[in-house]
Amino acid sequence: MGSKYPRSMQCFLPLWTLVLEVALIVIFFFFTSYDTSSQDPKKLMETYRVLQDVTIMVALGFGFINSSLRRYGWSSVAFNLFLLALAVQWAVLLDGFLEQLSPKKVVIKLSSIKLATMSAMSVLISAGAVLGKTNLVQLVLMALVEVTAFDVMRMIQRKYFIKDNHVNMMHIHVFAAYFGLMVAWSFRRPLHERVMEKDQTSKSSSLFGMLGTLFLWIFWPSFNSALLLDSPNERKNAMFNTYYALAVSAVTAISVSSLAHPQGKINMNHIHNAVLAGGVAVGASCYLISSPWLAMVLGLTAGLISTGGALCLPFPHLAVGF
Amino acid sequence: MGSKYPRSMQCFLPLWTLVLEVALIVIFFFFTSYDTSSQDPKKLMETYRVLQDVTIMVALGFGFINSSLRRYGWSSVAFNLFLLALAVQWAVLLDGFLEQLSPKKVVIKLSSIKLATMSAMSVLISAGAVLGKTNLVQLVLMALVEVTAFDVMRMIQRKYFIKDNHVNMMHIHVFAAYFGLMVAWSFRRPLHERVMEKDQTSKSSSLFGMLGTLFLWIFWPSFNSALLLDSPNERKNAMFNTYYALAVSAVTAISVSSLAHPQGKINMNHIHNAVLAGGVAVGASCYLISSPWLAMVLGLTAGLISTGGALCLPFPHLAVGF
Amino acid sequence: MGSKYPRSMQCFLPLWTLVLEVALIVIFFFFTSYDTSSQDPKKLMETYRVLQDVTIMVALGFGFINSSLRRYGWSSVAFNLFLLALAVQWAVLLDGFLEQLSPKKVVIKLSSIKLATMSAMSVLISAGAVLGKTNLVQLVLMALVEVTAFDVMRMIQRKYFIKDNHVNMMHIHVFAAYFGLMVAWSFRRPLHERVMEKDQTSKSSSLFGMLGTLFLWIFWPSFNSALLLDSPNERKNAMFNTYYALAVSAVTAISVSSLAHPQGKINMNHIHNAVLAGGVAVGASCYLISSPWLAMVLGLTAGLISTGGALCLPFPHLAVGF
Repeated sequence: MGSKYPRSMQCFLPLWTLVLEVALIVIFFFFTSYDTSSQDPKKLMETYRVLQDVTIMVALGFGFINSSLRRYGWSSVAFNLFLLALAVQWAVLLDGFLEQLSPKKVVIKLSSIKLATMSAMSVLISAGAVLGKTNLVQLVLMALVEVTAFDVMRMIQRKYFIKDNHVNMMHIHVFAAYFGLMVAWSFRRPLHERVMEKDQTSKSSSLFGMLGTLFLWIFWPSFNSALLLDSPNERKNAMFNTYYALAVSAVTAISVSSLAHPQGKINMNHIHNAVLAGGVAVGASCYLISSPWLAMVLGLTAGLISTGGALCLPFPHLAVGF
Repeated sequence: MGSKYPRSMQCFLPLWTLVLEVALIVIFFFFTSYDTSSQDPKKLMETYRVLQDVTIMVALGFGFINSSLRRYGWSSVAFNLFLLALAVQWAVLLDGFLEQLSPKKVVIKLSSIKLATMSAMSVLISAGAVLGKTNLVQLVLMALVEVTAFDVMRMIQRKYFIKDNHVNMMHIHVFAAYFGLMVAWSFRRPLHERVMEKDQTSKSSSLFGMLGTLFLWIFWPSFNSALLLDSPNERKNAMFNTYYALAVSAVTAISVSSLAHPQGKINMNHIHNAVLAGGVAVGASCYLISSPWLAMVLGLTAGLISTGGALCLPFPHLAVGF
Repeated sequence: MGSKYPRSMQCFLPLWTLVLEVALIVIFFFFTSYDTSSQDPKKLMETYRVLQDVTIMVALGFGFINSSLRRYGWSSVAFNLFLLALAVQWAVLLDGFLEQLSPKKVVIKLSSIKLATMSAMSVLISAGAVLGKTNLVQLVLMALVEVTAFDVMRMIQRKYFIKDNHVNMMHIHVFAAYFGLMVAWSFRRPLHERVMEKDQTSKSSSLFGMLGTLFLWIFWPSFNSALLLDSPNERKNAMFNTYYALAVSAVTAISVSSLAHPQGKINMNHIHNAVLAGGVAVGASCYLISSPWLAMVLGLTAGLISTGGALCLPFPHLAVGF
C-alpha cells in the first residue's frame, strides 16, 4: 500500500480490476457453456461436497491463517476471497483451453470448478508472503501469472512426463512456495519494519490463525483425495494416510515447539504450518502407501523438519512447501 | 435494552419466553408426529446434509455477520441462535397447518425442518437491523409475527400465483429487508448514538464479520439449490449460476470498495453484503439460466448496486435484499 | 505451567511426548494394517462425512469453547488439537486390541477412526477443567489414562451389560465430567487466582466461545446418530430428537439466563453448555423417542437444570455431563 504512486493514479488502479472482470465475462460469453448432459444425481452431489470441502479449505483456511501474520488482518481475509474468486474464473478458462489445445467452446462441469479451485490455491499460498505489501492490481497480476504458469506446467507434465492428475496437482506446494518467495523477494522491505509487525500479534489474531489452521487440518484428507474419485480403494488409502500423517505431525510440531521454549510454551508461528506438514509430505504418494506406520513416519519427519525450519526461515508460512 | 420498563417488570419479561416454549411443547404434543414411513437411507442423508448446510449459513453466517455491526457483539450471536431455535419450531407448525389447511396431525419430516430453517432466515435477516435495541420479548414477538407473515404470503402465492416452492422462497430477501427496515424504523434512535457505535468496530470484530460473510459465501449455492431436489439438472444449474454470480460479485465489490477509498483500502461495511449480492440476484432464476456469462453479468450488476447502496443506506446489512 | 520443576528438567519434558509418538509408530508397524477389502464407494463416503462431522465438533467445537474459559486462549486450541491427535492414535489401537482380546493384527477401517475420535472426545471434555494448569506431559498422561479407562469400561459394558455400541458411547458425558472433576481437584489452585482470571474474559474471546458452541450445536445431531448407521429409521429418529432437544434447550437457556440478570442481559458462562444440554439429555435414548414433544420436554428440563447448575458449580463447562 506504498506511497510510490501519485494519489490520482492510485485511485484508478482498482478500475483495471473491473475492466478485467468485464473482459472475463466477454470471454465466458464467447467460449464457454455449461455441461448439459444429464448426470447421476448421486455423483453430482458427491462432486459438490468435495468442491465445498476444497472451498472451505481455501476461503476459510488460508484466509484466517494469513490474517494472523500481518498487520492488515481482516483485509487479508477479503483479499484472499478476492484472489480466490478471480483465480477460479481464470483457471476454469485456462484448464479448458489447455485441455483441448484449440479455441473451441469450453464445457464447464462441477469438476472443472473443483480443479480450478485447487489451482487457485497456489495463488493463495504465495499470497501469504506478499499480503500487506502489494496493492490490488499487483495481486491481480500475480494471480493471473501464477495460475497460468502452474496450469502450463501441469499441462506439460501431463503430456510428457506423468499422466496422473493427482500427482501433478500435488506439486502445488513446492511450486507455490518458490513462486511466493520469488515475489516476496521483489517486494521486500527493510528488516526493522518486519520485526515491529511481529510484536503486534495479539491473542485474538492468534486464535484466528488457529481457526484457519484447524480448517486446513480437518479438510486436508478431502483435498488429498479430491482427484481420486475413480478408484474407491485409492481414495480410501489417501484419506487414511493423510489422516495419520496429519495426526503425527500435529503431535510432533507441538512437542518440538514446547521443547524449544524455556518454559515449555508453544510458539504459534512454529506450529501453524508444521501441524499441516504431514498432509503435504504424503500429498503425492498418499494413495500408494499401504500401512499406517509409513504415513506416520513421514508425518513425524515432516513435523520435525517444518518446526525446525520455522525457527530460521524468514517466511515461516511458506515452510509448508518444503 | 432501554430503561422504559420499570425494573421489576423487566425482570419478568423473559418469563414469557419460557411460557411460550411450554405452549409450543403442548401444541407439538397434540398436533404433531414424526414421519414413520421407511425411507431410502441415501435420500435421508442427502436431505440431512442440505439441512446442515442451511443451518451453518443461518447460525454461523448470520450470527457472525451481525456481530461486527453492533456493540453487543457476542450477545448478537446468542440472540441469533435463540431466534433460529424458536422460529424453526414455529415455522414447522405453521407450514404444516397451512399446507393442509385443517387441524389434523402435522407429519414432521427432515425436509420440513429444512423448509422451516429457510423461513426462519427471514427473521435473522431482519434482526440485523434491530439487535442491540430490543429486549428478548420484542425479538420473540418479531420472530412470531414475521414467520407468520412470510409463511402466509408464501401460502397465498403457492395457491393463486406461482406454484413453485423455490421461487416463493427466494422472495425472502426482499421481504426480510422491508420487514427489517419497518421494525428498525419503529425502534430508531437519535443519530449521534449510532455514529458513536460505528467507531467501536475493532479489528477482531471485523474478522468475525468476515467469518460470517465467508460462511454465507461458501454455503450460498447449497441454499439456492436446497428446494430443487427433484431435478438434478435444475439443481446443477442453480449451483453453477450461484457460484459464478458470487465469484463475480466478490471481485466487483472489493474492487469498487477499493476504488472509493483514497488510499485504495477496503471498507468492510461495503463488502459484507455486496460480496453476497450475486447470490441474491440469481436467487429466483438460478435454475433457469443456461450460460455462465448471464449469471456473471447479474453478479457484476448486483455487486455494483450493492456496494453503491452501502455508501448511502443507513442499514447497509439490509442492502442485501435489494 | 508451574515453577515446581527445575528449568533443566522442564526442558526435557516434551521429549517424552516425542518418545511416546515414536513408540506408537513402532506399535502401528507391528500390529496394524489397513482394511484392504473393496468397499461400496457410497458407504465409504458416508462414513467419511460422519467422521468429518465428528472431527469438526471435537477440533473446532471443543477447541474454541475452552479458549474463552482460561487465560491461555490460543494455546488451549493447540493443546486441544494435540490431545485429539494423540488420543485418536491410542484409541484406535486400544479399540482394536479390546475388540479381539488377542495380540493379532488390528485392521483399521474408517469407522475405527470415527469410533476413536468419539472416545478421544472424553479427554477433551475433561481437559476443559485442567487447561492452563498442566504441562504437556501431564496432559499426555491424562489422555492415555482416560482413553484406556473409558475404552475398558465400554468393553466391560459391551460384554456383560449392554450390547449396543451407541448407548455405551453416550455415557461419555458423565464419565468425562467426573474424570475431569477428579483431575481438576488434584490440580486445584487457590480461589483468588481463579476469580482474577474470570475478569479477563474479553468480548472477542466470548465470540470465540460462541463459535465453539455453535459448531457443537450444529453438528450434535451427527454425533448422536454417528453409531446408528445400520438402521435408517433409528438414525432419522436420533437426528430429529437431538435437533428438537437442542432447539428447546437453546431457547430455555437463553431465557433463563436473561431472567437471572437484573437488566435482562445474557451471561455467556451460563449458556455455553446449557445450550447443548438438550443434546446430552437425549443422547442415549434419542433413537427410541417417537414424538417430538418428548425430546422437547427433555430439552426444556436439561436447559433449566444446566443453566441453574452453571450458577453454582465451580466448573460450569463440566455441567454438560449432568
